[in-house]
Amino acid sequence: MPEQITHYGSKISVFAQRTAIALHEANAEYTDCDVDFENKPDWFFHASPITTLVPVIAYGGPAVPPEQPSTESTKISESAVILEFIAELFPSAAGLLPKDPVKRATARLFVKLLDTKLWPPLFAWMQDGAPPHEIFEVLKTLQMILPKNVQGQYALGDEFTIADAAFAPMWARIRLIIDKGIGEKEYGREQHIAAASRALESPELARFTAYADRLLGRPSVKATWYEDLNVVYWSKKVAAHVRE
Amino acid sequence: MPEQITHYGSKISVFAQRTAIALHEANAEYTDCDVDFENKPDWFFHASPITTLVPVIAYGGPAVPPEQPSTESTKISESAVILEFIAELFPSAAGLLPKDPVKRATARLFVKLLDTKLWPPLFAWMQDGAPPHEIFEVLKTLQMILPKNVQGQYALGDEFTIADAAFAPMWARIRLIIDKGIGEKEYGREQHIAAASRALESPELARFTAYADRLLGRPSVKATWYEDLNVVYWSKKVAAHVRE
Ligand SMILES: N[C@@H](CCC(=O)N[C@@H](CS)C(=O)NCC(=O)O)C(=O)O
Ligand SMILES: N[C@@H](CCC(=O)N[C@@H](CS)C(=O)NCC(=O)O)C(=O)O
Repeated sequence: MPEQITHYGSKISVFAQRTAIALHEANAEYTDCDVDFENKPDWFFHASPITTLVPVIAYGGPAVPPEQPSTESTKISESAVILEFIAELFPSAAGLLPKDPVKRATARLFVKLLDTKLWPPLFAWMQDGAPPHEIFEVLKTLQMILPKNVQGQYALGDEFTIADAAFAPMWARIRLIIDKGIGEKEYGREQHIAAASRALESPELARFTAYADRLLGRPSVKATWYEDLNVVYWSKKVAAHVRE
Repeated sequence: MPEQITHYGSKISVFAQRTAIALHEANAEYTDCDVDFENKPDWFFHASPITTLVPVIAYGGPAVPPEQPSTESTKISESAVILEFIAELFPSAAGLLPKDPVKRATARLFVKLLDTKLWPPLFAWMQDGAPPHEIFEVLKTLQMILPKNVQGQYALGDEFTIADAAFAPMWARIRLIIDKGIGEKEYGREQHIAAASRALESPELARFTAYADRLLGRPSVKATWYEDLNVVYWSKKVAAHVRE
């Protein structure tokens, strides 16, 4: 039996949706605490002493109110680390990390590329309206990793793994910004949103977008996605950036 | 029995020393191929299609000369990913990843912080002679993760883990640059090297530096450390940078 888990997350955080997905896949019992990460409360430093970012998990220690984190719990930061932690803690979520060492390595490499190669240009496009070109170069690299046969449902094949949990929140936001045209009219980003939309339709990326769209139908992804809040959040973020 | 392993590394690469250490800890049989990563041969793209960086491992497939990588082997990039791959492949190296999920998460978090927080300012200091202040802030954060008791030999306790394998190559280079005063006389970096040296002596970091120096005595670290080549490499790198 795992010890107590307190998940400090946020309904609008890309990275906290990852860990919320994994907890959902694991059918885990846990205490959820939504943190206003742009306006962090003072106590949050005690929950996340290493990075002061969400998500973070406080594991073990006594039952305490989330806003009064115990010094006796272990604090685990970084979504990629927490994904593996959840996979290892819950046998019911064992599918999140395949058994085969080669597949495990592939899943970890996929997550690594998301964090180091995809996120910087993706964030720049989402927030600053930067051109999306680099995003699509990275998606083509990620496509190289996908199973070659069209039946492969997820990034590594039949099983939904940490690779999928890590990517789904990013893809949900790409689709959101394109479908709602966030920032398009108000801030003159029509061009970069149209360019992104065209790139996603290109046959070169067909295998990848088919995979990515499939992720959005996964129950754990749907259950942890708050569209209205994300529309408000990203519209505000774009507006604040344009005003600068 | 693991399948064939070809390790594309380099005697002067920080990141390839990590994986060389792990292979040494595992007592692995493998083919080693030293890659001139600043002047990459054409065939290297086929060995490292995803990142074109060292280290990379080609796993499985037929026995081929390293310079003619087979399309049938799996190519595994990213030192942090390869470290876990080796730990999982070799029971003799199982200590590299502790059994306890909390310790595993801690080891992964340590590696993550090395790559995202420590490496950028460390590289800037090593190559460009940037001030070392940020490095020591990160080392203080890493020190928070170390076991509190002084007996703890390594980052997670008694066992030498992926956290240690990932950090040792960075520490070896910090010590090298300070001890040999690389760039000090020729390029006027006395001040930043002296500042780094003083910071390492500070009682605030005593627990951390004691740990870090202990790493350099580990046989796998010694066996994979090429001091003379590193003196030449870093002196050249600093000189090239100063000339720019
Ligand atoms: N690398 C981290 C990134 C986490 C992150 O950037 N979290 C954001 C919210 S999406 C945050 O807490 N931001 C607050 C801040 O930057 O101070 C992870 O994967 O967990
Ligand atoms: N994040 C990578 C970094 C690897 C890396 O930067 N390797 C350097 C040598 S230390 C390299 O191959 N550089 C060649 C290049 O940048 O083209 C890892 O951890 O493996």
